[in-house]
Amino acid sequence: MIIVMKKDASEADIQRVAQRVVELGFRTHLSKGEERTIIGLIGDERPVNWETLERMEGVEKVLRVLPAYKLASRDFKPENTVISIQGTRIGDREVVVMAGPCAVEDRPQMREIAQAIKETGVHILRGGAFKPRTSPYSFQGLGQEGLEILAEMREEFGLAIVTEVMAPEQVPLVAQYADILQIGARNMQNFALLHAVGELNKPVLLKRGMMATVEELLMSAEYILSHGNYQVMLCERGIRTFETYTRNTFDINAIPLLKSLTHLPVIADPSHGTGKWNLVGAVSKAAVAAGADGLIIEVHPHPSRALSDGAQSLKLPAFAELMTGLRAVAQAIGREL
Amino acid sequence: MIIVMKKDASEADIQRVAQRVVELGFRTHLSKGEERTIIGLIGDERPVNWETLERMEGVEKVLRVLPAYKLASRDFKPENTVISIQGTRIGDREVVVMAGPCAVEDRPQMREIAQAIKETGVHILRGGAFKPRTSPYSFQGLGQEGLEILAEMREEFGLAIVTEVMAPEQVPLVAQYADILQIGARNMQNFALLHAVGELNKPVLLKRGMMATVEELLMSAEYILSHGNYQVMLCERGIRTFETYTRNTFDINAIPLLKSLTHLPVIADPSHGTGKWNLVGAVSKAAVAAGADGLIIEVHPHPSRALSDGAQSLKLPAFAELMTGLRAVAQAIGREL
Amino acid sequence: MIIVMKKDASEADIQRVAQRVVELGFRTHLSKGEERTIIGLIGDERPVNWETLERMEGVEKVLRVLPAYKLASRDFKPENTVISIQGTRIGDREVVVMAGPCAVEDRPQMREIAQAIKETGVHILRGGAFKPRTSPYSFQGLGQEGLEILAEMREEFGLAIVTEVMAPEQVPLVAQYADILQIGARNMQNFALLHAVGELNKPVLLKRGMMATVEELLMSAEYILSHGNYQVMLCERGIRTFETYTRNTFDINAIPLLKSLTHLPVIADPSHGTGKWNLVGAVSKAAVAAGADGLIIEVHPHPSRALSDGAQSLKLPAFAELMTGLRAVAQAIGREL
Amino acid sequence: MIIVMKKDASEADIQRVAQRVVELGFRTHLSKGEERTIIGLIGDERPVNWETLERMEGVEKVLRVLPAYKLASRDFKPENTVISIQGTRIGDREVVVMAGPCAVEDRPQMREIAQAIKETGVHILRGGAFKPRTSPYSFQGLGQEGLEILAEMREEFGLAIVTEVMAPEQVPLVAQYADILQIGARNMQNFALLHAVGELNKPVLLKRGMMATVEELLMSAEYILSHGNYQVMLCERGIRTFETYTRNTFDINAIPLLKSLTHLPVIADPSHGTGKWNLVGAVSKAAVAAGADGLIIEVHPHPSRALSDGAQSLKLPAFAELMTGLRAVAQAIGREL
Repeated sequence: MIIVMKKDASEADIQRVAQRVVELGFRTHLSKGEERTIIGLIGDERPVNWETLERMEGVEKVLRVLPAYKLASRDFKPENTVISIQGTRIGDREVVVMAGPCAVEDRPQMREIAQAIKETGVHILRGGAFKPRTSPYSFQGLGQEGLEILAEMREEFGLAIVTEVMAPEQVPLVAQYADILQIGARNMQNFALLHAVGELNKPVLLKRGMMATVEELLMSAEYILSHGNYQVMLCERGIRTFETYTRNTFDINAIPLLKSLTHLPVIADPSHGTGKWNLVGAVSKAAVAAGADGLIIEVHPHPSRALSDGAQSLKLPAFAELMTGLRAVAQAIGREL
Repeated sequence: MIIVMKKDASEADIQRVAQRVVELGFRTHLSKGEERTIIGLIGDERPVNWETLERMEGVEKVLRVLPAYKLASRDFKPENTVISIQGTRIGDREVVVMAGPCAVEDRPQMREIAQAIKETGVHILRGGAFKPRTSPYSFQGLGQEGLEILAEMREEFGLAIVTEVMAPEQVPLVAQYADILQIGARNMQNFALLHAVGELNKPVLLKRGMMATVEELLMSAEYILSHGNYQVMLCERGIRTFETYTRNTFDINAIPLLKSLTHLPVIADPSHGTGKWNLVGAVSKAAVAAGADGLIIEVHPHPSRALSDGAQSLKLPAFAELMTGLRAVAQAIGREL
Repeated sequence: MIIVMKKDASEADIQRVAQRVVELGFRTHLSKGEERTIIGLIGDERPVNWETLERMEGVEKVLRVLPAYKLASRDFKPENTVISIQGTRIGDREVVVMAGPCAVEDRPQMREIAQAIKETGVHILRGGAFKPRTSPYSFQGLGQEGLEILAEMREEFGLAIVTEVMAPEQVPLVAQYADILQIGARNMQNFALLHAVGELNKPVLLKRGMMATVEELLMSAEYILSHGNYQVMLCERGIRTFETYTRNTFDINAIPLLKSLTHLPVIADPSHGTGKWNLVGAVSKAAVAAGADGLIIEVHPHPSRALSDGAQSLKLPAFAELMTGLRAVAQAIGREL
Repeated sequence: MIIVMKKDASEADIQRVAQRVVELGFRTHLSKGEERTIIGLIGDERPVNWETLERMEGVEKVLRVLPAYKLASRDFKPENTVISIQGTRIGDREVVVMAGPCAVEDRPQMREIAQAIKETGVHILRGGAFKPRTSPYSFQGLGQEGLEILAEMREEFGLAIVTEVMAPEQVPLVAQYADILQIGARNMQNFALLHAVGELNKPVLLKRGMMATVEELLMSAEYILSHGNYQVMLCERGIRTFETYTRNTFDINAIPLLKSLTHLPVIADPSHGTGKWNLVGAVSKAAVAAGADGLIIEVHPHPSRALSDGAQSLKLPAFAELMTGLRAVAQAIGREL
């Protein structure tokens, strides 16, 4: 951490700041420039509440040198984290596809989807039983019955299950049914929930909030890791920008950026990332080309009758065709799918 | 709701959409323009999942006519909602100020603050016992002990208490101590939490998410209202933009906009809205001039030693001076403070 | 265009609006819903200043039905526009790569780059002679001398030249040297400049402003087209968001979106789109996978001594390696490079 | 400037960077922390192209210590710049109001407006003769005839004139008629235009780009100042965010922030800052309460027939009433209007 003093800071100001830094357990390093004096902190700056230093007399600003996360960083663990689920290895050479409807609606819907995606080579089925909806008047999910239907699909088709958990008190229930627990974008900074899944021994798919920076996503992962659960996948699902044609702006930069900053697997969600079914194919291929370790894609047999997210769901034949295209792109960059 | 058909939509496409709309319980109204056919829905469109209509063959886009919220709208209830707390009326002629530290740290800190703000004419004390922090390594709040300290301050100084609740299972505990339950910006779409406070009979201060639109804020209020709790205040606390000098961009437009769209009281939080103590005074005055029903301001006796949010906290003498300035602005627009 | 009347609009209000619409040369179509009356305009709405209708008594809002651009739309011209430059066809099956330094610095630099990119199969050389710089203290480009160097490279290596023009009065000079005139992101809405290049008979590369929506980009293209120049390429180069790790957020969604909305070729600029050289490779591959018709990439023999944009420039060997990778991705989606 | 080396940077990397810094004319200051080595530059960092340093082997990132602007900073000139126009002093104790239509339409319109605003105490008339419009099909302004009408109003009513200039070649013409030349938001980084007005000896009103940071606004002012014209006013006119209810988000924080960073006067444009006439009054009062030195407000006798910006223009009686309200707010904060 580096403290930049104001141009007109007095010697006494500088001494007070330096002394405070020593109190906080750091050694200091003073550097007098032409216009400004700079005080460097020597030691692990992560636990320091830098804001308070900014309030001291004579301080202009405080610059962080280290990222705020530690366990999630490549500095801490250089090799990729690989998460194994029923023989599928996420974060390794293979690009893993998860597919399914936004919401579990009923058994026939799920069976039709499960069968269709199974045939395309997908190993993981997605589907929401608890649905976070912006309107209290929208379909809120089937709840436990939805989880039971998902478990039946696992039984019948040998697919692993990824489904969302919305509140700390739902964690034990959802963990009983799911192979991967999803934390939704709106809950990325629901710290009570992060704490709860951090105490599980099950993989977690952590979605980036639509308003969250890459650093904040990594800090939320750090919450889970710091409670002992190291099986965390990060999911880029689009951020909110001024553009209104698309529901979100898929942040393709985040894919290689995350791969360089962290050892955790990176999954792309082009369905939410675009919000429009006719852009999902192109952005799926882009995400694979950019180095994503996996994709999570919404499919539905009859999108125009879906209870949720119909506008961004692929029909089953389109999805099968996309899988072929994705395989070619994965091979072009030296991976498999 | 209005459905715009594609230029090349066939007559059969149009018929199918019109029929679907009838199935959904609406009457339709067809209008053939020069380039496009348009289908209007007659009836209450709010419960309709418009996305699925967008997926039908031949549909170009779907335009909403009504806002998605109802109970929160001025159309539904034209007169202002006034919330009474220990004789203070929020949403009426008086501009109400809530003040206190970001986090409850200990008894002496809280007593010093409570006494100082009481003397300036403040009626409501803020302070966090449960703190949502982006880093797992930061101070997380005193928990129940913090709530007990707050309750003591109410007893000793006659101040009402506003404090944050972070998870549904904390609601009963926090409701036992607080006069107003605060939902933080990061939890604005924590729907399980909104549901939980919606079943209380206590005022709720709902903060706008840093990347939430005004409409989404109103939808989150609608969640609480739809579960039976009508005592909701909305709080503008700054949104996230590309500007980096300030922590957030205080959305001053949202103050008169919300006052025109909804009957609920509107509170401004210039501390989070700026993130810099030296901008808090100017933006507080601006919020009052723009018509805010109240302010929530962070103060601390020693910001450079605060456990949280020191950079945006006012010192106690500066706060007292600000109160005088705010009173003059309130009078200039025909209100009191 | 659709005019939504307020809930409490009077019959007289409705009549006045309907009459005004007729004055403007449209036929109207009235639809009385349960809560709102809606007035449809029948005719080409593009020239209408919709804002003024919004100011009429009793009007709640005005919804546009047609996009504001016409000549640039696929509705107007369904087949792809292909632009031929010295035998290279942009907008056709081949993915075209343009490469070169941010700024033309001197002859040896340009010769080294031109030779290196020529060997990788590139046909178009980029390089700025007039440089828009945020600081008046930064290198502003070599001006005409830079243009002359570029022309020499065309002569010597048979490369076509793309270079930026910054002001209307520079257009004749730059057009004398360049094969493609680039309009920079900061000038996307410099309407005097758009007008000037619209009167040329030379290809234009129009970069999306960092603050511009896809629709605004298409409107700026419309300016050029409406003045008679149909050889316009659109360039996605990243938009400004709240994310600070990267210089811009490359909007990958915009690639397939633009391909669906317009017949004009779409070029991707991953150098500005990321601002970090180590992300350029991944995002270049992503852009090709998403369907871009071309790439424009910054390269430099010694980025750490570049006069501009060193942080995002690839070294020449890294660029050569990337070309191989891009070729594989292009083939995977059925194109060539 | 501070260079943070990577965790695994070698001694040779550090030496190479230090040597480069010396080549660039700086003294260096080395500090070895526990995880990182840091190299400080001693000297004026402003002319350095920091990006290239970031590309050197072993460098993790480069942190700036000084702002990039100099002449515009309060450090450089602590006292307020006051600009005098026909006896009106902008940047001093008085809050100055500029008012008029978006576009000059014809003589009767301008005379009606000029007379009405004159009666409310306004000294400066705004009105566009050259109009930057996003659509080539919209009204583009009357051009020179518009300038002549403005000059007549000055003659007849004794009002000073502010009007926009859109291209370098228009500068001499516009400067002949205007008292203040306006640079529009879309031209804030039209560097050729900034250069041209920098060589004038006339006041310039520089509008913040809708996606420009406060620092970029100051850098654009620096362009003008560095060419010798010190009479620059900065104008906050709203930035682009994800919020769609309002046309822009007025950045109220920027008012006190700019007043602390720069000595230049700060003007607020609540018409563009909101885009909605019914929010203009509240945001005007807010801007004055926050410390703006002036306001620029769009008015029109018949907004529903305006050729441009009708949705955000106040009618003349509403404007007169607002002036009374503004006067009260100005007095409440110890200023006049």
